[in-house]
Amino acid sequence: MEPATEPRFVTTRRVEFVDTDMAGIVHFSNFFRYMETAEAEFFRSQGHSLASTKNGSGVGWPRVAASASFKAPAYHNDVLEIRIYVRRRGFKSLTLQFEIRRGETLIATGQVKTAYCRFRPDQPIESLEIPATFDSLIGPYDPAADKEPVGKDEG
Amino acid sequence: MEPATEPRFVTTRRVEFVDTDMAGIVHFSNFFRYMETAEAEFFRSQGHSLASTKNGSGVGWPRVAASASFKAPAYHNDVLEIRIYVRRRGFKSLTLQFEIRRGETLIATGQVKTAYCRFRPDQPIESLEIPATFDSLIGPYDPAADKEPVGKDEG
Amino acid sequence: MEPATEPRFVTTRRVEFVDTDMAGIVHFSNFFRYMETAEAEFFRSQGHSLASTKNGSGVGWPRVAASASFKAPAYHNDVLEIRIYVRRRGFKSLTLQFEIRRGETLIATGQVKTAYCRFRPDQPIESLEIPATFDSLIGPYDPAADKEPVGKDEG
Amino acid sequence: MEPATEPRFVTTRRVEFVDTDMAGIVHFSNFFRYMETAEAEFFRSQGHSLASTKNGSGVGWPRVAASASFKAPAYHNDVLEIRIYVRRRGFKSLTLQFEIRRGETLIATGQVKTAYCRFRPDQPIESLEIPATFDSLIGPYDPAADKEPVGKDEG
Repeated sequence: MEPATEPRFVTTRRVEFVDTDMAGIVHFSNFFRYMETAEAEFFRSQGHSLASTKNGSGVGWPRVAASASFKAPAYHNDVLEIRIYVRRRGFKSLTLQFEIRRGETLIATGQVKTAYCRFRPDQPIESLEIPATFDSLIGPYDPAADKEPVGKDEG
Repeated sequence: MEPATEPRFVTTRRVEFVDTDMAGIVHFSNFFRYMETAEAEFFRSQGHSLASTKNGSGVGWPRVAASASFKAPAYHNDVLEIRIYVRRRGFKSLTLQFEIRRGETLIATGQVKTAYCRFRPDQPIESLEIPATFDSLIGPYDPAADKEPVGKDEG
Repeated sequence: MEPATEPRFVTTRRVEFVDTDMAGIVHFSNFFRYMETAEAEFFRSQGHSLASTKNGSGVGWPRVAASASFKAPAYHNDVLEIRIYVRRRGFKSLTLQFEIRRGETLIATGQVKTAYCRFRPDQPIESLEIPATFDSLIGPYDPAADKEPVGKDEG
Repeated sequence: MEPATEPRFVTTRRVEFVDTDMAGIVHFSNFFRYMETAEAEFFRSQGHSLASTKNGSGVGWPRVAASASFKAPAYHNDVLEIRIYVRRRGFKSLTLQFEIRRGETLIATGQVKTAYCRFRPDQPIESLEIPATFDSLIGPYDPAADKEPVGKDEG
């Protein structure tokens, strides 16, 4: 699937020595961490956090699904560019797309679906409607434009 | 997509303290590591390794794509059951499916596509035909049954 | 310093692919994780946990200090033996020593000092007297034998 | 032990979500990774790398010993300051000291001893004399000032 022409957010990430494995390249699991770190920076750019707690309760964005394709290896000391696209701003969930590049070389693409949730001690995680305070970050919720039905799981 | 009725391999994994995050649950990136560790154990069960090197060169199974859906949280000290299914035994690539359970609770499902490759110093990673020595582990290659064309990338 | 002649607990650990780095060996930070995982298993062997929470509060064993010497490299697929010695059972803290071996080869030695602590939401972590329920695991507290003074930090 | 009054290098590090554990704080093993990442940046500041390979061989700085004391917890989104001091510039080894702070709060101190080594395929890691090209980074080797004897292990 094609990302929108303009990324919503762009940042960079240095590949650390510990991110590599015995094949001499970044371990694939670390690309998921790079995506989350870029997402956290995207959130912070407007004063939001991926997770915050108070009095033992909190709100956050646990991952519902994640996928990535690995196009070319990345190496220690590489500076990677990470581009974030808002793929879908749902009622209760958010799907972001990612492109990871080193110069002109496409290293990986990925997609992560998260849900806005409340954490309370000893209670199940509960998904919530995404507040309007996130509209300037990820766009307002538009039921007419939303391609997926708003259901318990799919909101 | 439905996994085959019988898993090809089943193992267990203890959730370690370091695998958790401040939300009190296993960080999503670690499920990709659990899947790889189970895959390595699956390989070792017939004397194979995910990666081996000699004289600076080696063969291994770098990941081409990976995806997962996270159904329920997992916690420190949980013992998870990991089931592996062979989704597709291609000419040069292998696609495995994973189910991660804690008792009757489905925690996560995942899919990982890997390619059999040669690593040589200062040369690009080169994909190879999967040797017949892997047939007893993942099944023989059957062009008639293979749903995807055998191409440079898709083999 | 010499460990006691007999380890208090012995377990094994398989080196996973993701634990290696581009030098082809286990990244040093992972030995600290191996030690903690072995410690967790030691605790579980008598029904204890390194961390437990209820209603948002909890008790656990945060690390106060950790050190290790790396004697020989460890490789993917190695099965390491981890031996745990109780170096000092303090009033509020516990110091464990570790030996990590592959067969006859000493891979690493380490020492970890932890403190028994209470975690409560939005309050500082508070160290507590180690309960007598741990006596069978780590030995009783013996002021006469304790080489270090029992102070706020050093208990 | 007292660090020199002036750090040789200072950098910052953002605490990522994945660095936290279920106690809501940075897992202790990650402070060792923070120290190594800061060290890598210190090396890059004068064009050096912690590890480099060519034709399957390489040179790098494997860790010989590492220790840390954890003074106060660090949390997601914290920006930590990491100060590096050259504790000892040996003939074949380097000992660095680290201070990790969040504003005025001392979070952790650490010390890491590394050795300059050559990696060659299927041969033991071999320690080498630190080249003079590192003198501007870590100071020249001064046998008269060196407090430890230059031996096989201690150089």
